[in-house]
Amino acid sequence: MSVTDEYLENNRRYAAGFTGPLPLPPSKHVAVVACMDARLDVHGLLGLAPGEAHVIRNAGGAVTDDVIRSLAISQRLLGTREVVLVHHTDCGMLTFTDDAFKQSIQDETGIRPPWAAEAFSDLAVDVRQSIARITASPFVPHTDAVRGFVFDVATGLLDEVV
Amino acid sequence: MSVTDEYLENNRRYAAGFTGPLPLPPSKHVAVVACMDARLDVHGLLGLAPGEAHVIRNAGGAVTDDVIRSLAISQRLLGTREVVLVHHTDCGMLTFTDDAFKQSIQDETGIRPPWAAEAFSDLAVDVRQSIARITASPFVPHTDAVRGFVFDVATGLLDEVV
Repeated sequence: MSVTDEYLENNRRYAAGFTGPLPLPPSKHVAVVACMDARLDVHGLLGLAPGEAHVIRNAGGAVTDDVIRSLAISQRLLGTREVVLVHHTDCGMLTFTDDAFKQSIQDETGIRPPWAAEAFSDLAVDVRQSIARITASPFVPHTDAVRGFVFDVATGLLDEVV
Repeated sequence: MSVTDEYLENNRRYAAGFTGPLPLPPSKHVAVVACMDARLDVHGLLGLAPGEAHVIRNAGGAVTDDVIRSLAISQRLLGTREVVLVHHTDCGMLTFTDDAFKQSIQDETGIRPPWAAEAFSDLAVDVRQSIARITASPFVPHTDAVRGFVFDVATGLLDEVV
């Protein structure tokens, strides 16, 4: 049995206790942007209840054009106002460089990815970079409540980057 | 108090019962790609335990270049092999068109977004589109276990798109 099949069995148990549906727009008017890391249960670590907040995640929690797209839809069409960024200690993005990663793909496939890999070397600097990309975007209308945090994978605590 | 501050209080309670750290590579070798929708608690609906799977999310669960970037890092650097796509009923992406959304931004800001908004009109077609984008990518090495599902926000059940 694949892991996907295990997860489908879990889903049947989840649905047995499910109460829905909730409204489409996030009730707390928040969008979270977090790293995809397997140790971040975003609902758990922020105490998000179903229906409260959009959750956007990618490798690094980097504010790419796709995150700007998602935030534009979140704020302009679905009424969110606050943004919470969650990066974390022991991140995989600290372990390589864009150049080396893209070169390894080029060596193997013959094609160099046209995108930045978004590796970084300093967590706080990267959180500030992410905040700055949001506040500089012409497509994200509400940028007065954008805050960034580092989640400690050893303690479970969020530490704000100022 | 802002909602962000409420979530920080929740985090202190979460950390009080936290046991970590877990290893960086996902222990179940799975990456999930899901919509950012506020009603999808991905850990809950799939029964993911901390440390098991990468979770990538954006508006629509669309397989954009940024998702390909995240999957490339997930598979090439952190050992994942299966991909689980989760779209859902009552999705906001069914309620507008790319052209109208981008025109409204252009009318307001003077700038037309250079990205596709990734709106769609048929859930199953969009899930198949997402699967096809992954299997066609030269940057994602493992594409023999890519499966797509629609989460029903009324029942909590996943339905596979074949």
